[in-house]
Order: sequence, then C-alpha cells, then structure tokens
Amino acid sequence: MRHFLMAMALIAPMAYVAQDAQAQSAEEKVVEARRAYFKLMGANMGPLGAMAKGNIEYNAETAQLHAGNLAAIASYNPTPHFAAGTSNADMPGKTRLLPAAFSDTPGLLSKLKDFQTAVAALQDAAGGGREALGPAVGKVGGTCKGCHDDFRAKDF
Amino acid sequence: MRHFLMAMALIAPMAYVAQDAQAQSAEEKVVEARRAYFKLMGANMGPLGAMAKGNIEYNAETAQLHAGNLAAIASYNPTPHFAAGTSNADMPGKTRLLPAAFSDTPGLLSKLKDFQTAVAALQDAAGGGREALGPAVGKVGGTCKGCHDDFRAKDF
Repeated sequence: MRHFLMAMALIAPMAYVAQDAQAQSAEEKVVEARRAYFKLMGANMGPLGAMAKGNIEYNAETAQLHAGNLAAIASYNPTPHFAAGTSNADMPGKTRLLPAAFSDTPGLLSKLKDFQTAVAALQDAAGGGREALGPAVGKVGGTCKGCHDDFRAKDF
Repeated sequence: MRHFLMAMALIAPMAYVAQDAQAQSAEEKVVEARRAYFKLMGANMGPLGAMAKGNIEYNAETAQLHAGNLAAIASYNPTPHFAAGTSNADMPGKTRLLPAAFSDTPGLLSKLKDFQTAVAALQDAAGGGREALGPAVGKVGGTCKGCHDDFRAKDF
C-alpha cells in the first residue's frame, strides 16, 4: 500500500494524456481503460455474489479463483486510468466519474484501500464454504458501493 | 503457475455461461470481460512501448508502475473469460477469438505462460533505464503477437 501511495504521488496523471500522439482521443482511451478495470472487478464479483446468494451452486475452487482474481486487481495500480480531465464534467455522457475523484484524491485512495482490505479477507474466506463466503463478499461489495456513492454519478 | 494450471483443469468453463440468469447475453458478457482483460494489457503496454521507442520520455517510476500492472494481470486467471461458445465461429462479428482457443487449450496456456515469463523479466528491467526496458518490452510484445498469430483473427 505504501508503494502504491508513493506511486500515486510520483506519477503526474496528465502525462498520459499530454504525451499521447492522438491528443483528441487520449481522454477516451483513459476512460476505456478505467472501464475495463472496473469491468474485470464486476466479472469476478458477479459469480461470487451469485454463489453467496445461492443463485448458483457454491464451488470452492471457483470461489477461490474469483477471489484470487480480485486480489490481482487489488494489486493493480489504476492511477493512469484516473488521469485529470476525464470526469463527467469534462466528458459528459461518456463517463460517470465525478470530479470529486480529483478534488478529493485522498478520499478516493481511501476507498481503494477499503477494497484491498476486504479482498484480502475474501481470499481467506472464499474457499471455506458458502457460509464463510457470504459475509466476505458482502464486505467487498460494500466497498464497491462506498466508492460509487462518493465518486460515481448514478447515470451518464 | 502450477496453481493456475490446476485451476484451468478444475473449472468447467461452461458453468459461467450455463448458470447465468440472463442466458441470452451470457456469452456477450464473457466476451466483454475478455476484452477488458486484454484492454488492460494494452493500456499498460502502450506507454511502455512508447518509452522504449523514445516517443515519450523514459521515466523509471512510470515504467515500473506499468510493469507492475502487467504482473498483476499476469497473476490474473482468465479462464472464465474463455468460456466455450465464445469464439468467432460462435459469435461472428463480436469477437476475434479463433476456435483454436478451445481445440488447442494447451497451446493457449503455453502462450499465457510465455507472457507471464516475459512480464516477470520486464518487472526486473523496467526501472533500469530505457536501454534495459526496450528489449524486455519487446519480449513481452512478442508474446502478445505469438498469441494473436495463433488464436486471434485479424478482423472481426
């Protein structure tokens, strides 16, 4: 985590936008990558949530796989995908990211840390049966919601 | 890697498709997640390639960040995103994945292993200057191409 915070401070977010050869679409590329990052979170949360709810059968190996994938995502540094100039104020209709992501970067990082902490606990719990999985998935989902509440608009 | 291969063998790829509540769009969801997975690879390879070519200035911290992100992706198990029934033979115009991905799963896994190996070397090299970065990025890019050659159609 300390390494991540250092990286956040050291990297100038705008570098990715300003240095891109195709200046017109640089922000759109940032948004695309950001969406991919969250898409992968959702693709792993989906089956875990379905197992927790009993909508699909619990399978320890599958649960462990998806928890491991969330851990991989939690170890990913998404800083470049939050380059300045890519909020919904800058790009209406193309992203739901609120300007608060830039005015309150410590708050955004705090939400990421919550996610990382909950995912670490999920990794320990996922293979231990549906009863263990449920609360751990719920906590990860809570960190998703916590970030959405503060940093994502409801609609485009 | 052994853990990954075990997981590949244990998970029934169709489970994600068959158990989805919205049967009609399950395959499209798989393709979406697969595209997100490769999108994130590209989003990190892009700046590294640009640095290696001298199109943007070399920055050790930035290079290390992207190499670390590729390592995170390399630790991600993409099995669910290669569920059967999602090749370009099954879904023409919607994906470029060739049926070979399913008829030659060991070959596909071998390409993934090449990527993981090259990314591990990149992580060691990325912070060591542009001269060290260049060949390491080239090798990772070679593993991308190696997989595209065998498992991705040129066009949709």
